Amino acid sequence: MVDGFQIRGTTRLMGIIGDPIAQAKTPATINTIFSAGGVDIACVPIHVPVQELETVWAGLKGMPNLIGFGITLPHKQTALELCDSLDPLVKRVGAVNVVRRERDGSFRGYQFDGKGFVRGLRANSIVIETREVLLLGAGGAAVAIAFALVEAGAKSVTIANRTTEKAQVLADTVNADFGRIVAKVGPAKPTTGQLVINATSLGLNDQDALPLDPDLLRPGMTMAEVIAQPETTRLLAEAAARDVETHSGIHMIKGQVGLIADHMCDIWG
Amino acid sequence: MVDGFQIRGTTRLMGIIGDPIAQAKTPATINTIFSAGGVDIACVPIHVPVQELETVWAGLKGMPNLIGFGITLPHKQTALELCDSLDPLVKRVGAVNVVRRERDGSFRGYQFDGKGFVRGLRANSIVIETREVLLLGAGGAAVAIAFALVEAGAKSVTIANRTTEKAQVLADTVNADFGRIVAKVGPAKPTTGQLVINATSLGLNDQDALPLDPDLLRPGMTMAEVIAQPETTRLLAEAAARDVETHSGIHMIKGQVGLIADHMCDIWG
Repeated sequence: MVDGFQIRGTTRLMGIIGDPIAQAKTPATINTIFSAGGVDIACVPIHVPVQELETVWAGLKGMPNLIGFGITLPHKQTALELCDSLDPLVKRVGAVNVVRRERDGSFRGYQFDGKGFVRGLRANSIVIETREVLLLGAGGAAVAIAFALVEAGAKSVTIANRTTEKAQVLADTVNADFGRIVAKVGPAKPTTGQLVINATSLGLNDQDALPLDPDLLRPGMTMAEVIAQPETTRLLAEAAARDVETHSGIHMIKGQVGLIADHMCDIWG
Repeated sequence: MVDGFQIRGTTRLMGIIGDPIAQAKTPATINTIFSAGGVDIACVPIHVPVQELETVWAGLKGMPNLIGFGITLPHKQTALELCDSLDPLVKRVGAVNVVRRERDGSFRGYQFDGKGFVRGLRANSIVIETREVLLLGAGGAAVAIAFALVEAGAKSVTIANRTTEKAQVLADTVNADFGRIVAKVGPAKPTTGQLVINATSLGLNDQDALPLDPDLLRPGMTMAEVIAQPETTRLLAEAAARDVETHSGIHMIKGQVGLIADHMCDIWG
């Protein structure tokens, strides 16, 4: 933390709830942002076992100097029911990752996975506009990213998923939402110049199968990850070995933290 | 806060609850102690309106990485009923100022006003052992201090209070507890070499009447305050003007914070 950071009686609190919570990197990262901006907010880890979620939630609501909290496993889905209101993106993705105390005191759920991913790409100077995207996976992360990429100007999104039906549902939802055919289902076969994104959980463990045959990757493509740990997945290493531009999942995390800090400061900074 | 202080996922939380809470000095002071000791605990202010106390209390109980909290106005008395167990001193004084999560997860209430006052005197090299004490007041602070001073070796405690009955009850309780006559009721008239303590609230406001005629003070006596703000009360200024050793209420606060830090670290440090 930068020099001069100090918790005082006036300091507002932002939590991050999860079980376990010891692994959370958000407090250290976001406090550096708050501190650098001269904002009197401190982010603290709050360990919340599943059976305590409702009780702790009510308690957090009763603390007027608590301005909101990030949500990590295993509460991302169950938190939906506890929010007083939800940003539309939360319902689409089916997961909340931030709750903010609004001006009226209510707790509203937000979802920053997709926007965080886009911000991470931009921070790494990776072009999205007019780009064709191959999205691997159709789960929560893929849904968030599909919407955010189209919103950010991607030309098309091809969704490749083991269960084709799930990919089709996502493509249909995106197309319906944007009122044009921008998403479609396809195989895990990248074409020239594509931005390829692994939004599956394959790669979290080193023994996982690769979500894509790396021999299909060519220079001019970008291979991006949602997985942040390991920072360089086996797929990214294979891509780099083939002179393909790579983009670690760590950038998504950093992008998200920056967005969340801004979002909190919009009301409470 | 010392360099290197950082809140991480592993950081344990200590709260300080009150309404208002912005004035609380405990977070800044105790975090410096934790940080200097290399202890991964952060103290944070928690604003708790009266009508939210029970809900927030239950919430705090449901966060295993919250190791306890300090209590300030207006919760010091109402907190008694919410604790799972109470240190005997809490019942005597009728106020809790610290709650600690014990090893079994339960919340136990503690009272450090008296011991904090004694630690403050010692930090300021003021002798207690074999000393005769004139204690002004018989409220919560006076009760805590009377017990702590006798325990610390004071020779006698004379209690002067507007309502004599209240002073008598305190003297009787102290004598019963220690099994000897060490406390008695008397007038607000100090005698040679006495340690005089203002444990009333007179002096919080500059227009307050003095709790003692300062012309009765003589060199060789010590005039001590419970009031920490202003740091130099009018009574202390009058005493200093008469070459009487003075002792601000600020030392009690500092003494207390040190004790509380030790107490938390006994289990969670």
